Amino acid sequence: MFDRIGIITNSGVKTVSETLTQLVSYLGSKQRTIILDNCCAELVTTGEFEVFPQDELGKHCDLVIAIGGDGTMLMASHLLCDLDVPLLGINLGHVGFLSDIPADDIAHNMDAILDGDYVDDVRFLLQGQVFRNDVSIFEGYAFNDVIIQKWNIARLVELETYINGSFVHRHRSDGMIVSTPTGSTAYALSGGGPVVHPALDALLLVPICPHSLTNRPIVVNGDSVIEVTVGTREIDHARLTFDGEIKLELAPADRIKVSKKDKKIRLIHPPEHDQFHILREKLHWSK
Amino acid sequence: MFDRIGIITNSGVKTVSETLTQLVSYLGSKQRTIILDNCCAELVTTGEFEVFPQDELGKHCDLVIAIGGDGTMLMASHLLCDLDVPLLGINLGHVGFLSDIPADDIAHNMDAILDGDYVDDVRFLLQGQVFRNDVSIFEGYAFNDVIIQKWNIARLVELETYINGSFVHRHRSDGMIVSTPTGSTAYALSGGGPVVHPALDALLLVPICPHSLTNRPIVVNGDSVIEVTVGTREIDHARLTFDGEIKLELAPADRIKVSKKDKKIRLIHPPEHDQFHILREKLHWSK
Amino acid sequence: MFDRIGIITNSGVKTVSETLTQLVSYLGSKQRTIILDNCCAELVTTGEFEVFPQDELGKHCDLVIAIGGDGTMLMASHLLCDLDVPLLGINLGHVGFLSDIPADDIAHNMDAILDGDYVDDVRFLLQGQVFRNDVSIFEGYAFNDVIIQKWNIARLVELETYINGSFVHRHRSDGMIVSTPTGSTAYALSGGGPVVHPALDALLLVPICPHSLTNRPIVVNGDSVIEVTVGTREIDHARLTFDGEIKLELAPADRIKVSKKDKKIRLIHPPEHDQFHILREKLHWSK
Amino acid sequence: MFDRIGIITNSGVKTVSETLTQLVSYLGSKQRTIILDNCCAELVTTGEFEVFPQDELGKHCDLVIAIGGDGTMLMASHLLCDLDVPLLGINLGHVGFLSDIPADDIAHNMDAILDGDYVDDVRFLLQGQVFRNDVSIFEGYAFNDVIIQKWNIARLVELETYINGSFVHRHRSDGMIVSTPTGSTAYALSGGGPVVHPALDALLLVPICPHSLTNRPIVVNGDSVIEVTVGTREIDHARLTFDGEIKLELAPADRIKVSKKDKKIRLIHPPEHDQFHILREKLHWSK
Repeated sequence: MFDRIGIITNSGVKTVSETLTQLVSYLGSKQRTIILDNCCAELVTTGEFEVFPQDELGKHCDLVIAIGGDGTMLMASHLLCDLDVPLLGINLGHVGFLSDIPADDIAHNMDAILDGDYVDDVRFLLQGQVFRNDVSIFEGYAFNDVIIQKWNIARLVELETYINGSFVHRHRSDGMIVSTPTGSTAYALSGGGPVVHPALDALLLVPICPHSLTNRPIVVNGDSVIEVTVGTREIDHARLTFDGEIKLELAPADRIKVSKKDKKIRLIHPPEHDQFHILREKLHWSK
Repeated sequence: MFDRIGIITNSGVKTVSETLTQLVSYLGSKQRTIILDNCCAELVTTGEFEVFPQDELGKHCDLVIAIGGDGTMLMASHLLCDLDVPLLGINLGHVGFLSDIPADDIAHNMDAILDGDYVDDVRFLLQGQVFRNDVSIFEGYAFNDVIIQKWNIARLVELETYINGSFVHRHRSDGMIVSTPTGSTAYALSGGGPVVHPALDALLLVPICPHSLTNRPIVVNGDSVIEVTVGTREIDHARLTFDGEIKLELAPADRIKVSKKDKKIRLIHPPEHDQFHILREKLHWSK
Repeated sequence: MFDRIGIITNSGVKTVSETLTQLVSYLGSKQRTIILDNCCAELVTTGEFEVFPQDELGKHCDLVIAIGGDGTMLMASHLLCDLDVPLLGINLGHVGFLSDIPADDIAHNMDAILDGDYVDDVRFLLQGQVFRNDVSIFEGYAFNDVIIQKWNIARLVELETYINGSFVHRHRSDGMIVSTPTGSTAYALSGGGPVVHPALDALLLVPICPHSLTNRPIVVNGDSVIEVTVGTREIDHARLTFDGEIKLELAPADRIKVSKKDKKIRLIHPPEHDQFHILREKLHWSK
Repeated sequence: MFDRIGIITNSGVKTVSETLTQLVSYLGSKQRTIILDNCCAELVTTGEFEVFPQDELGKHCDLVIAIGGDGTMLMASHLLCDLDVPLLGINLGHVGFLSDIPADDIAHNMDAILDGDYVDDVRFLLQGQVFRNDVSIFEGYAFNDVIIQKWNIARLVELETYINGSFVHRHRSDGMIVSTPTGSTAYALSGGGPVVHPALDALLLVPICPHSLTNRPIVVNGDSVIEVTVGTREIDHARLTFDGEIKLELAPADRIKVSKKDKKIRLIHPPEHDQFHILREKLHWSK
């Protein structure tokens, strides 16, 4: 169980390097095979390990550990979402929503996990596709959210939303967030959305600063197909982002289709993992 | 199909009487057996029908029609929730979230429904139970929401929330709403909750005017068990309501347990029923 | 300057007693005449001082110090609002919005203040009056807010609002908050209101959980006269609170008139007082 | 009184043309001198009038009438804000917040106004200035709002806010709105701000989708000086808009200073003008 363990990161700061060295040493002492991405390989000076590019690494592991924060976990989820490799996050700073093993307590947590004592947390991703004149021109995945947002204009953008083919509304706003439960505590929360428990099979739609005050967030079944159409007069006024990365400039009448991705990703948590504990920490709920 | 049709109402206003007369005449012309509650029986002067008290009527029908508005549908849902009788609402005023056949268009809609052409909309209810010193002292059902709310005090009430046994938070507020998707467009919406599609198997928790601005609405799996505990110093400061009716004065340390009721209720809609159309009408979303 | 200094509190807990002893000793060393309310007099065993009931004390002082928290300051503001005596708060716990001298740093802060080096912070109160059949049946003052709120019912209450005689809206909600800028960070904030700077001459109206999502908080000129009328069908369904204390059961058609009180209250702060620093601390804004 | 009346518009659609013709005919019958901007001059075929470019016209009039909607009024306010010429709006569609004389009822409303029977509604504008390395590189005016908003990035922008030199907070968001009371019902409302009565001398700060849920709208005295500083790492990530028009790409450490403009603008309303009536209409408050 978890014999071949990959390690990835997206940063070369000193704390990553220290944590990585410690982790490599720990895993070596546990007789695990260690596989590093190029970024990690540059940071480690001693120890034995295989090296692969980030987009290759997942195929050679039966567990991947991401060192960093929630951003690193987002990156890792994109690399692994088509493989069946579980993912675990070691956090260098404050506890994250996704990356929940503190860097200063690796041995304690990893001992249990390597012994098979862990929480399996299966999360789904979004699959987003853009149709222009009914031809698919882009496809991508998101762990948090797909966002159609205004761009290059100061005024609002006009969007039409459909759920499973049913017209929902035409509205003017700064954009529309389609979010997984995982993403409900990211940008969607700033937009006024609810906290959606990650175990709920649901999609969340949050209009951003809608002109009409009654355009509230909507939660629908996870199997729903969401379609958002850009207003026909919105020339160069909307862009599409996946997990916070700009993917495409949208054209008038572009249709963005978002649904659950078929393959899921498994997050591995320590045995005492408690989603509400993380929420309390991150949202400063008093205990 | 739908041979024995019950009719109930909770009002004796003139428009109810007129609609009832028209409905009885229509159903008579369709050779249906008509069963009235006592309230309806007083309003109808001609035609042939059986009469039962409201809490008996459901057992003798294979369809119940409620004449009134969403409030009438709430009442009816309580009467029918342990039977397997579907429910249909004729609305006297503006279209309701639940009661969606306009009184001035009965024949058109009923023709289709009696021919078997209709939308089946299965909704779940909440089962709420109150424990005092670990002894159950009250049990009830709600179609919209179970609310623990402050009472007889101007300041906030202190509540602790647990989901599936996990501590969520201790917070001070005007109360806590536990809502079905059906109830998400009722009081929960005023409290800042999202619109939850009725087909989603989820429970919604909305704190009412929480002291901490980060205590946001939470959406969890429909199979979750919610427990809310009243603060130990809250003497005579909290009451429990089910669907807007006061059920109990809560004592310090009372524990309210809310989960999905085992039996569901079937709403019958006309074939062209569209949940988003109703949302657009009720929330004044522009088309 | 500040020769005769009164001290009041609303609690007899040990920390109050310790702080009081320390303060009495400090003021004695500064040759100030010390005047205690009955509550304080019971807690102090040594030192020389005059004693007055709380509602008399203000007349004999040229500065009053309240030991406790913001609640103590609210109480003190009611005692002093018709006199020209400034008020200063010593806080036993976390810094308060009103009570901002920490109990463990009295000498440092009081030295400056007694030397005349302080910030003068003049705040206005609300004057509220209730008319039943056009006869005034109640009058009171509030430092934070006057609230007309639903009572004894689970459903919403219907209220009509007028500003300077102009009809604003009839709306259904859990109630209406009329708040001073001081009160904007109290209950009004939980109701969705903005932070209003205490130096702004404005009144804030915040509907509590309004049925209509477009019924947003309104900020108007401080000289405005606000009138809220209870719906004619609301029998025993609304109560009036001033600063969180229940004052009156409202009857249908009762008219509550709220405006700025003619006399103001002066808060004394240490010279480095910074309203935004307090907001950052209390609202956990990151620095 | 109102002898020389200018007319401006920003549109050549047929309804503007019809309304303009009607207005010119009406004003001619009242022996007023009519002054048109170039845009209007092209639309009128009969009648006698002087013609000036839009930025000249105000100097030659003692009243300016804008035909269009609130957008036309915004444009006109920019043209007139340094002159002492009052402004009146004729609305072609739904009633506007600013443009409140319906096109189909010109004579009725204008009769009263030309007779001196009208409501004077003095509004202030914002003056915004951008400092780069402490050198002023831009200056402009806004009737609704000055907005510092993120640009060219999907993630949040980091801003620091100061009020009258006091640090308020450093926060991450989609941007910051500094709004007049006039602008409180525009974009600021979508961002969660309160309705601020136009007669209140106040500025409104509304963070757009702030990361921290406690970063609420703030209302301060109208004489306040607001400064917003762009985070030092925000390269090409923020832009400045005035009344919805992009004015400048902001650089890291740019400082935007916003305060009340010295000169105000007078809006002329019909005698029965009622700000709350307009709010009820525009925000769909039930009557």
